[in-house]
Amino acid sequence: MKLGRLNHVAIAVPDLEKAVATYRDVLGAVVSAPQSLPEHGVRVVFVELANSKVELLEPLGVDSPIAAFLEKNPAGAIHHLCYEVADIFSARDRLKAGGARILGDGEPKTGAHGKPVLFLHPKDFCGTLIELEQE
Amino acid sequence: MKLGRLNHVAIAVPDLEKAVATYRDVLGAVVSAPQSLPEHGVRVVFVELANSKVELLEPLGVDSPIAAFLEKNPAGAIHHLCYEVADIFSARDRLKAGGARILGDGEPKTGAHGKPVLFLHPKDFCGTLIELEQE
Repeated sequence: MKLGRLNHVAIAVPDLEKAVATYRDVLGAVVSAPQSLPEHGVRVVFVELANSKVELLEPLGVDSPIAAFLEKNPAGAIHHLCYEVADIFSARDRLKAGGARILGDGEPKTGAHGKPVLFLHPKDFCGTLIELEQE
Repeated sequence: MKLGRLNHVAIAVPDLEKAVATYRDVLGAVVSAPQSLPEHGVRVVFVELANSKVELLEPLGVDSPIAAFLEKNPAGAIHHLCYEVADIFSARDRLKAGGARILGDGEPKTGAHGKPVLFLHPKDFCGTLIELEQE
């Protein structure tokens, strides 16, 4: 496989409005309107940078996948990095064959941008959660 | 101020050679040769992505600024995000006037790329350490 663009950096935050104010009003970034993604358990805002994006994620609903992470990091913290790949199935097969662990059942799911995504186990990737997204 | 490009994402790692093997051999990224930066207390490798960079940082020397962070995150973890700004002095003045905390003495230092950089207090920025680098 060949690692593509850095699609986004995701930051989990306890208070999305406050995070939007920080990025828009303090840092002077262009920030999208909040979107609720109930199927992902998050409410999200995109910070549009010239070359990439930052996603600000707030928990949504009772089973949010970022709730436990925020309990450990109450002020917020970087949650994952998302890299693009040209062929997510081929990437998955190469990674599995090399012994890397894919989270969940190993099948790509539809991500926040409507494209297939996979998450890789942090223990196999320098302690960081990596999302791979089909280009 | 206006937030510019995402210059890099920095990941602190306990073993640079292992991290290089992960990014180069497992993920298929282009990785630079390691550089020792004794004045910054790190040994660093750049992962060259199409639109940005990942810096893999290993502690160097006894007073490495990432040593305590790795004690808390022994497998490695994302250490900071670096955004570019057109004028780092003007950005610093605007941020300070708004009440944001600049780390250290508030004066830009020469960063790993030979340009002036500042670090902002994580508590004021969604729990994440932010480096600002002059464009």
